[in-house]
Amino acid sequence: MSFSIRDMAQKARMASRQLAKLSAQQKNAVLHSIADNLVSMSEQILTANQQDLAAGKEAGLTDAMLDRLALNEKSLANIAEAVRKIAAQDDPIGSIRDIRRMPSGIDVGKMRIPLGVIAMIYESRPNVTIDAAALCFKAGNAVVLRGGKEALHSNLALAECIHQALSTHGVNANAVVVIPDPDRAIMNELLTLNQFIDLVIPRGGEGLIRFVSENSRIPVIQHFKGVCHLYVDKDADEVKALGLLTNGKTQRTGVCNALETLLVHKDIAPSFLPMAAAMFNERKVRVHACEKSMGYFHEAEPATDDDWDTEYLALEIAVRVVEDYAQAIEHLEAHSSGHTEVIATQDYSTAQRFIRDVNSAVVMANASSRFSDGGELGLGAEIGISTSKLHAYGPMGVESLTTEKFVVLGDGHIRQ
Amino acid sequence: MSFSIRDMAQKARMASRQLAKLSAQQKNAVLHSIADNLVSMSEQILTANQQDLAAGKEAGLTDAMLDRLALNEKSLANIAEAVRKIAAQDDPIGSIRDIRRMPSGIDVGKMRIPLGVIAMIYESRPNVTIDAAALCFKAGNAVVLRGGKEALHSNLALAECIHQALSTHGVNANAVVVIPDPDRAIMNELLTLNQFIDLVIPRGGEGLIRFVSENSRIPVIQHFKGVCHLYVDKDADEVKALGLLTNGKTQRTGVCNALETLLVHKDIAPSFLPMAAAMFNERKVRVHACEKSMGYFHEAEPATDDDWDTEYLALEIAVRVVEDYAQAIEHLEAHSSGHTEVIATQDYSTAQRFIRDVNSAVVMANASSRFSDGGELGLGAEIGISTSKLHAYGPMGVESLTTEKFVVLGDGHIRQ
Repeated sequence: MSFSIRDMAQKARMASRQLAKLSAQQKNAVLHSIADNLVSMSEQILTANQQDLAAGKEAGLTDAMLDRLALNEKSLANIAEAVRKIAAQDDPIGSIRDIRRMPSGIDVGKMRIPLGVIAMIYESRPNVTIDAAALCFKAGNAVVLRGGKEALHSNLALAECIHQALSTHGVNANAVVVIPDPDRAIMNELLTLNQFIDLVIPRGGEGLIRFVSENSRIPVIQHFKGVCHLYVDKDADEVKALGLLTNGKTQRTGVCNALETLLVHKDIAPSFLPMAAAMFNERKVRVHACEKSMGYFHEAEPATDDDWDTEYLALEIAVRVVEDYAQAIEHLEAHSSGHTEVIATQDYSTAQRFIRDVNSAVVMANASSRFSDGGELGLGAEIGISTSKLHAYGPMGVESLTTEKFVVLGDGHIRQ
Repeated sequence: MSFSIRDMAQKARMASRQLAKLSAQQKNAVLHSIADNLVSMSEQILTANQQDLAAGKEAGLTDAMLDRLALNEKSLANIAEAVRKIAAQDDPIGSIRDIRRMPSGIDVGKMRIPLGVIAMIYESRPNVTIDAAALCFKAGNAVVLRGGKEALHSNLALAECIHQALSTHGVNANAVVVIPDPDRAIMNELLTLNQFIDLVIPRGGEGLIRFVSENSRIPVIQHFKGVCHLYVDKDADEVKALGLLTNGKTQRTGVCNALETLLVHKDIAPSFLPMAAAMFNERKVRVHACEKSMGYFHEAEPATDDDWDTEYLALEIAVRVVEDYAQAIEHLEAHSSGHTEVIATQDYSTAQRFIRDVNSAVVMANASSRFSDGGELGLGAEIGISTSKLHAYGPMGVESLTTEKFVVLGDGHIRQ
């Protein structure tokens, strides 16, 4: 396949100028057409997906990988529904806030505008192609999509749905570019094109994210891992705390907002840890325990230094008894991944203090870490989670794909 | 001099934890002590500055460079006054906005927090040492300062003022680190330390900024250049437009918010350009004219393609007559540096359209481009101007040195 990635990125940049000027109605009409096409064109999408699945089986992909890759009528309908929900969200573009009159007499405010062009680099899930395209488009951005090679045929078929919808509504097809070759050299070239692309969002394993971060000349939103902590304070309500622990660790395990470490104040450990141990036993949660907590568990392994930084993504947890609040904070400062930390306490002052002391992207008092996602936090659909502090921190919704410019209104005002 | 830059950055990271917890009062007390020290320790600062000036003369620095390097009692008093103004500004840290109750019952809001550690890389002006330290400190960040080698003694003497103030108030001295060796290899190492430093802000020439951007593993706020445009629409008030042109081009020339290009609608050119020509003649502004405007000027040079992208920073301007509004926008899309663009028009619809169509960091109707700075836009002191869209866009005040985390308050809420 012969094409120039530079050329594609430049065309996306050109298309972004039209996108920035589309009204909310125009953008939502395109999104509804994409949703319609996902259903009406399902036959050709599923045929392409079968091609990917067959090639994947031949290449020896694991069942889990094939599962992530697979599409069917129902999953397409779900993806279409997600696109309709994005259409139904508020349009962030064009709103002006905080117009103030300055001493010089000029009026100054800030207007929300698109970033321009966003590159998404992701692995095998083909639904990301539609999700990412729809969210970037909603925010008025062009998008360059580079999916995994296992999903290439599926992604190209999904791109066809998008391109037909763009064309139906007279929008430049380069608003959504799917790179037709997932070669790594091409990705490397993509990462140098900072004159055309404003932001790169990698979604996938730590290796992919590290590679993109280290090789990109374009700003990157990073999400390495979620090592979420629950600290059970001496003044915790033990029943509530057990609920948070059970929900955080076992409701879903393969997600970044699951709990990975439990810290327990030494004063409450003798009553709380037996309850925790019974729950772990019942739910078959493997425990890596510190010396002081070891005795409470039927069969726990001794926690190693590595355990405090491990994202298990499984029915597995590290447990540590701490001397006091200060030691809990010290532990978090040393081991937090910047994702989500929770305190369970009934003490007003301790809760207030924790909320201020802990600067992870999401900090909670008496709520499950599982609430740490875009939908639950009220952002609507989520494009990713940032654990770096620049631009966006925590779950990212449509607004994270925008920026603000200053707007100045004068009447011939000049500077003295 | 033997030291480890990695070690210094790590210590700054440790210090940043204390800074994040300081109250506004504590931070302002430190800032006032810094201001006091600048005056009471002026003798040793000026002695150090003399050392730099003598070495600079020997090394053959230009008069302009020596001028930028020089400090005296008056300039120190001005710097101290600027620090007091920073102390008087609102403290952005800790404010919580938009607490909303979600359908799940949890309350979700966003709290403003420091970024952590900021590295400033700058050239010869020693006042940046104090400005940057004061602004970063106000926002609760630790800062690593790497100034030019010409100003090293001055910078170390200024650092002493800061460290005494920190120590007086029991704040970790590593909150402000001045790198004692401006060697480039050390800067290169600094730019890899993304585990300790959250943001790099380079201030200086285009070469420095490009070098930092291309070599940094840490996010960089870029400000390459300001090629600011004034578009005089067919419906402009010519007297107001001339005022904007005169102020924008001649009030101060060596600044990034000065006008560099004048675009004039062809319908108004016959009456407006003679007024502009007379002003340029009187103020000795050198003109680079397009073919259609050439005839209006006594002595103009033909504008080359390069002129449309040149930041003259001098009494010099590029002039182009455009067919219509659309061609003006096309010109901006091709040549804007993303800094500041101005329209002069009395037509309501055209002004509204320009404000929405142009996505530079600052877009103005009927106001001078010279208003495009932090103070005039109401931000207080300015740490720099970003012409890249991520995180901050346009003039950056204290708030640009912060981020927001999500705060979640529950009462034992778990996810269903």
